[in-house]
Order: sequence, then C-alpha cells, then structure tokens
Amino acid sequence: MKATHIEHIGIAVKSLDEAIPYYEKVLGLKCYAIEEVEEQKVKTAFFKLGDTKIELLESTDPEGPIGKFIEKKGPGMHHLAFAVDNVDQALADAEENGVKLIDKKHRKGAEGLNIGFLHPKSTFGVLTELCGEE
Amino acid sequence: MKATHIEHIGIAVKSLDEAIPYYEKVLGLKCYAIEEVEEQKVKTAFFKLGDTKIELLESTDPEGPIGKFIEKKGPGMHHLAFAVDNVDQALADAEENGVKLIDKKHRKGAEGLNIGFLHPKSTFGVLTELCGEE
Repeated sequence: MKATHIEHIGIAVKSLDEAIPYYEKVLGLKCYAIEEVEEQKVKTAFFKLGDTKIELLESTDPEGPIGKFIEKKGPGMHHLAFAVDNVDQALADAEENGVKLIDKKHRKGAEGLNIGFLHPKSTFGVLTELCGEE
Repeated sequence: MKATHIEHIGIAVKSLDEAIPYYEKVLGLKCYAIEEVEEQKVKTAFFKLGDTKIELLESTDPEGPIGKFIEKKGPGMHHLAFAVDNVDQALADAEENGVKLIDKKHRKGAEGLNIGFLHPKSTFGVLTELCGEE
C-alpha cells in the first residue's frame, strides 16, 4: 500500500449548526457540502483545504457509531482517512502485514468514494480509513 | 484568519519504535525526521504525505502533556495543526472571535516553526494548533 495523501480527517461534533461557524468564521474555511450517510447514521459537513478535507460528523442516532463515540469520549477527532489507489487491494495489503480489519472489502462512504476501515487496535489507537475511487 | 492547509496531525503513541514501522510498512510512508522537543517533553517522528505531515509524539516524561494524555485517553490523535501566515495575528483573530487561547503569543515548536494553541473547549473538542514561519 502507498497512501498518497490524507483524504480527510473525521471529527465528531454534537451539532453541525454549532460547529460549522467556527470552521468558517475562525479558521476561514468554507463548507462546500452537507450530506447524510444513512448507513453510518451521520450527517456530514465537508471543508476543503490544501489536498485534504475536514469532515464534521453529527450523529443522527444515539446508537450509531458517532453517537456512541461522543457519549464515551466527547466530541473530537474520530478517524483519519488516507487516500489509496485501490481500497480492496490496500485492505488486503494491510491484512497481510498483520493489521486487523474492520472491513474486509470496501463499502460506499460519503462523496461516493469506496472506503474501508482498519481496526484501531492495529493502528496504535487511530481509527484509520482507507478511501479511493477504486 | 485563513488556514491554508493542514500543517500536521499530531498523534500520541506509546513508543515511536513500535509505531514507525506501521506507518512505513503498512501505509507506505517514510519517516524523514526524528526530533526531541524538550519544552514539550516529547520525541517526535515526522512523515510527509501530500501537503500535510503526520507527527508521532512519544512522551519523554509521564508528567508531560503527551504522557498525561495517553494515561487518560490512551494513544491516538492528539491535535490538529493548521498552517497560517502569521501565528500571532491568527491567535489575535481567534481571540477576537471569542475563542479561548492556550497561547496568547507564539512559541517555538518542532521544525523551528512558530506555534500557538487554541483551547479545545472553544474548538468543539479538537486541540487545535496554529503554525507558520511567521
């Protein structure tokens, strides 16, 4: 696997309406898309800066992954997503190197990208997403 | 303030020696520098990808900020650093917008950059660093 850049940083927030003005007014970024990802039980807001994005995640269900994360740890950085050429190949490469996977094969994430997660137990505590167009 | 890109993502690890091989072998990155920042009581390892860096942080003192963070929360993402043109001006802008500051003025961080931190209470749980050459 060769990660080419950080595709995005996922940040759990209690409320997009409260957090978006901070990113826009204080940091000078622009929210260019808001999208609900039903499967993940989140509503997302995206900001682009350089070759990376910030993805704010608001839970739409207390039993969803972001709802549980905020209940346990409070709002904050949730996951780190690396861009790769081919997600299934990258997942297979990671597993071959002894990394525990959350997803054996890609699924569809926000912005139509293929995504797959590595388990934080194998990645030194960082919930790690691989994503790409293939 | 206008953040131009993500300068780096700071990740707390228990051991650089254990974590570096994961970033190199699994993600295909290359550690290009290891630097001790005595004031912060950390040893850092840097990886560049795209216009961003990953900064792994190993504590050199259990009473230092990273030592305490790991004891409380375990290893994982610790802070998010945005590149700005002028750190003191960006800190002043943030304060004017009601953000609580950790640093009123810049101090020196890794790689000789000027750095200053915003308080996570004002940034929706994300410990936020501003950094730049000025």
